[in-house]
Amino acid sequence: MALSTSRPSTQRFDPVIEHPDAKGRFIFVCEHASNMIPAEWGDLGLTAEQRMAHIAWDPGALAVSRKLAELMDGVVIHAPVSRLVYDCNRAPDKASAMPETSEIYDVSGNRNISSQERLRRTEAVYLPWANGLHNLIAGRIALGLRPVIVTVHSFTPVYQGKQRHVEFGVIHDNDLSLAVAIQAAASKHTRLHTKLNAPYSAADDVTHTLRAQALPYGLPNAMLELRNDLIATKSTQNEMAELLAPILNMGLVEIQRQAKAS
Amino acid sequence: MALSTSRPSTQRFDPVIEHPDAKGRFIFVCEHASNMIPAEWGDLGLTAEQRMAHIAWDPGALAVSRKLAELMDGVVIHAPVSRLVYDCNRAPDKASAMPETSEIYDVSGNRNISSQERLRRTEAVYLPWANGLHNLIAGRIALGLRPVIVTVHSFTPVYQGKQRHVEFGVIHDNDLSLAVAIQAAASKHTRLHTKLNAPYSAADDVTHTLRAQALPYGLPNAMLELRNDLIATKSTQNEMAELLAPILNMGLVEIQRQAKAS
Repeated sequence: MALSTSRPSTQRFDPVIEHPDAKGRFIFVCEHASNMIPAEWGDLGLTAEQRMAHIAWDPGALAVSRKLAELMDGVVIHAPVSRLVYDCNRAPDKASAMPETSEIYDVSGNRNISSQERLRRTEAVYLPWANGLHNLIAGRIALGLRPVIVTVHSFTPVYQGKQRHVEFGVIHDNDLSLAVAIQAAASKHTRLHTKLNAPYSAADDVTHTLRAQALPYGLPNAMLELRNDLIATKSTQNEMAELLAPILNMGLVEIQRQAKAS
Repeated sequence: MALSTSRPSTQRFDPVIEHPDAKGRFIFVCEHASNMIPAEWGDLGLTAEQRMAHIAWDPGALAVSRKLAELMDGVVIHAPVSRLVYDCNRAPDKASAMPETSEIYDVSGNRNISSQERLRRTEAVYLPWANGLHNLIAGRIALGLRPVIVTVHSFTPVYQGKQRHVEFGVIHDNDLSLAVAIQAAASKHTRLHTKLNAPYSAADDVTHTLRAQALPYGLPNAMLELRNDLIATKSTQNEMAELLAPILNMGLVEIQRQAKAS
């Protein structure tokens, strides 16, 4: 686009797509898979420890997604850059897309960034992500596959000093159906402490991907939040995926039943 | 995307963007600006006369959009390929994206097309269009410009043998505000026979662009439909734009007033 004429060129960070030819309907989406900060953004003013912490990414989310995809013959798509550079689950005009603070930490490299820098990050990280995800979804729609969009996140057990008791949150935007069905199945068939719209909700502006990528096509969709202490090791990540795979299928079967009945 | 491994490569048809650095907020969007059918799709089984008719494009819509952009310092973006190859205002799984019939004509080149051909057209026409429009919108959002999305269409005065009396239709999806304000201003300040959600409505699946590009970002948006006999010549196209430019501005001012009051 021509607004870019006077800016330095920046590398573009395309999403990583695994099993693009999978035959199942589920696409597992990880906007916060990576804590990688490309060299041109330095350390954003953070210590190495902070850059490893949950403020930079969602630990465990990608591993659980990969196992879910293996069990359900699904696709995985994940962003290769830390959400502290650009949070791909936010629109470019939101402060939280390039946050000046994250939980209790200042992110000094994000302080007072110019509109040109917002545009640069949008073009380097957000647009390749959003368009790559859109290409994946629209291509499968064209083939008649009607994908199911499930975004996979993890959250910290202690947030701003407070313990969180919820273990599995299922979040929806305007289309409630799949989220409600997944939450009901998880409550019935697992011992996970499961809640709808916890620890966040659409009011916290966390459903951008669902809104931009699933709702316009009327695709079944939900956002999953797993407490990260439950998916901290390879074995617990695999166990969580094995627990959730049948729950997600039950959710899809339930909304298909509802659609037929109506 | 990897689903494309076994298909022949096809040219990609990017949207045309005019005045990308315009300072005004309005982006005028013409999905049906052109009746061009690229050589690889032949004539789709249509006569030269049919390929010139409204079934292939929206005559006058681009000319009115260009004059509106000139008067309002706005951007114009238009698709370079006929909607009979791919209708960029439709999702890839809709029959009307690659219609087998259009009004009273058979489009034999669109009969029984395979899912691979649906994917090929989606990748050649729809995805470059949708991603190009998204890049334009998201880039301006990143710069803090908050674009206003107005799609511009024209319709035939006689449809399936029936005369249409409406002259100016204003169509909305789930966000009614700008469309209602424009319709009210046009009814009050012009002699155009103006109607909301005519000659089509969102129920006819005609608001895909608004739904995919404006709603996820909460941008003001509306779809305009002009009866094409009123914009058949250069001078009437310019007159229509001169009539509508202040109406669109009034609509935007009105929704800003409502937002402040609430």
